Amino acid sequence: MIRASQRAMGIEYAIRDVVLPARELEKRGINVIRLNIGDPGKFDFQPPEHMKEAYCRAIREGHNYYGPSEGLPEMRKAVVEREKRKNGVDIGVEDVRITAAVTEALQLIFGALLNPGDNILVPGPSYPPYTGLVKFYAGEPREYRTVEEEGWQPEVDDMRKLIDDRTRAIAVINPNNPTGALYEKKTLKAILDLAGEHDLPVISDEIYDLMTYEGKHVSPGSLTSDVPVIVMNGMSKVYFATGWRLGYFYYVDREDRLAQVREAIDKMARIRLCPNTPAQFAAVAGLTGPMDYLREYMARLKERRDYIYRRLNEIPGISTTKPRGAFYIFPRIEERSLWKDDRDFVLDVLNEAHVLFVHGSGFGRGGEWHFRAVFLPPVEVLEKAMESLEAFMKKKLSG
Amino acid sequence: MIRASQRAMGIEYAIRDVVLPARELEKRGINVIRLNIGDPGKFDFQPPEHMKEAYCRAIREGHNYYGPSEGLPEMRKAVVEREKRKNGVDIGVEDVRITAAVTEALQLIFGALLNPGDNILVPGPSYPPYTGLVKFYAGEPREYRTVEEEGWQPEVDDMRKLIDDRTRAIAVINPNNPTGALYEKKTLKAILDLAGEHDLPVISDEIYDLMTYEGKHVSPGSLTSDVPVIVMNGMSKVYFATGWRLGYFYYVDREDRLAQVREAIDKMARIRLCPNTPAQFAAVAGLTGPMDYLREYMARLKERRDYIYRRLNEIPGISTTKPRGAFYIFPRIEERSLWKDDRDFVLDVLNEAHVLFVHGSGFGRGGEWHFRAVFLPPVEVLEKAMESLEAFMKKKLSG
Repeated sequence: MIRASQRAMGIEYAIRDVVLPARELEKRGINVIRLNIGDPGKFDFQPPEHMKEAYCRAIREGHNYYGPSEGLPEMRKAVVEREKRKNGVDIGVEDVRITAAVTEALQLIFGALLNPGDNILVPGPSYPPYTGLVKFYAGEPREYRTVEEEGWQPEVDDMRKLIDDRTRAIAVINPNNPTGALYEKKTLKAILDLAGEHDLPVISDEIYDLMTYEGKHVSPGSLTSDVPVIVMNGMSKVYFATGWRLGYFYYVDREDRLAQVREAIDKMARIRLCPNTPAQFAAVAGLTGPMDYLREYMARLKERRDYIYRRLNEIPGISTTKPRGAFYIFPRIEERSLWKDDRDFVLDVLNEAHVLFVHGSGFGRGGEWHFRAVFLPPVEVLEKAMESLEAFMKKKLSG
Repeated sequence: MIRASQRAMGIEYAIRDVVLPARELEKRGINVIRLNIGDPGKFDFQPPEHMKEAYCRAIREGHNYYGPSEGLPEMRKAVVEREKRKNGVDIGVEDVRITAAVTEALQLIFGALLNPGDNILVPGPSYPPYTGLVKFYAGEPREYRTVEEEGWQPEVDDMRKLIDDRTRAIAVINPNNPTGALYEKKTLKAILDLAGEHDLPVISDEIYDLMTYEGKHVSPGSLTSDVPVIVMNGMSKVYFATGWRLGYFYYVDREDRLAQVREAIDKMARIRLCPNTPAQFAAVAGLTGPMDYLREYMARLKERRDYIYRRLNEIPGISTTKPRGAFYIFPRIEERSLWKDDRDFVLDVLNEAHVLFVHGSGFGRGGEWHFRAVFLPPVEVLEKAMESLEAFMKKKLSG
């Protein structure tokens, strides 16, 4: 047999890995309620009409050629305006790069930063591509503690302990996937201070930035003076266009300390040619257009968040903090004697209650004995899922 | 300053690297005829109407969600049918993967095959992402000789000399970029035999497969019995949709020797989530729809090929073989006393004749003292370029 590389074989991705056993059940005719993947497009959410129209117009008008590797100037300009409005950052078109969603931004940024043996600080728990991609580049993801009792805020003292001379960056995901945490301004300032002490850039994933229920999102890009910050964002969540695979990132780097990293990223971007061209015109429409759709969508999401939060806390053996952003909730399995671990719990729930969650340990440190639920479906669907889970827990606990 | 990784800094991409000096000229108001980038969408070529319509329909009908990592079943099925029709290969939907164009296919395949220090055989000269990506993964691209006098056919004896116990695959690009070569059936058979002797898979880039002027393209996938072949293709060239960034690859692997590599590739594909969803519906329309547009487009391209081939051979100090496929010609600089190297020649032509080519050495071994010209523009544009080049050469040679 022809062997595969170590780099590729080391990748795990829990969110999609639990799909196989669910498919098996579905093949047997069983209806599984899937609360595992964060895709609004699978429920009653769509990109706004003006974005769809702009996408089609671009295709029809012939914008089907290769664009520049760094992205179309039109979209880069729209990003500058959007980010100035949202974060008050002082950036120009030359600071913006367009990518195939945040995933590709991570591929480029981590690929440009990491030599084998280097490490990057990532939240624990965190979205799996973070740890996966760092390992892919023969680096070490170091997961800093986030404190459940404080709404999953990062613990800056723990970050400090993890930094050594091979640390290359601190990554924050805010609002957070999978915990729904919204980071406090003072925490972000403390992270910037720490990064400054060690001459590290901060990488900030803000893909859920306008999806908050209580409080407003604050970007470290808006707080920094001299610490370089790379902000990542895109069209997948706030603009509800997951399947278009389009995102962006930009440098807030007044002292130009990332000059070499920027050059390296541009080299990497060149060999993959460019992002999808007509989709970038759709993004321009989204980034510069009306946002009223978001109010309605967020009202729906808030109703669902409030519902699942209340119901989960009513179910014996389960408790949860309240997510303040994104569309995930990360409950805790209080009753632990009946299962080997959280993965065993999630598979048991799948097989008996026919509801699919993702096991918390799939998100790394701090995720043990938790699970992630997506609250995108309408309340009726969430109701069924919660009833089913409740019946399952009651049966197990009385058994 | 924050340093970048060695992996990223090692990347060179000649095709886009010559763009900067051209931009400088253009900023000064000079009109540069760009024959450097192989993008039909910048000239009088567009994806066919039925593909554009299918793309817009998918967007409007709400296919804007995340699809499966391996691609939509609809598109994978369309690929199976198209490839059975074209190559008579015996494959199923489970053998097909959808990617963000051939570039991403290469990222996945090379990433899954290469441990640091491994090598892959690639043609010399070859399309730069081949050498670039192998190096990116800390591998060594080994360029096998292709023989200009024989229309740039690969030299199998040279391949044999390059193979050692760290060799992981043999890559062929056919029709070839940058030489326009169309590989002979007997050559492909010899390559398969050699791969079989050394238990290596053959990676076959067939993105220009239906773009031939004399002779028909033959795929190693259609010739193999037990040697595993990975065939890559996509929508960028034959379907004229470069900016949509959509492609595919499939395994012809009767003895399942690539089982571990397939698993590794699927793991990598999962952390990048999925390819663009609505674009895949456009691809279904293209792969299963009428191909009559291609006849007309190929007639245009043949006229342009014939023109540039004739004119280049009339210009003193330059000679060229006739490309049999794709839309590139790779002439030889016969007069060498006046320039340091081919890059110096290309920059001199740019600055004095205002025509932009790519220097042959940017494509690696065998490219020295050559340049690549794209013959996509209409004959009137090629005429101007050739007149300008002719005047330049006559002046230089008489000087």
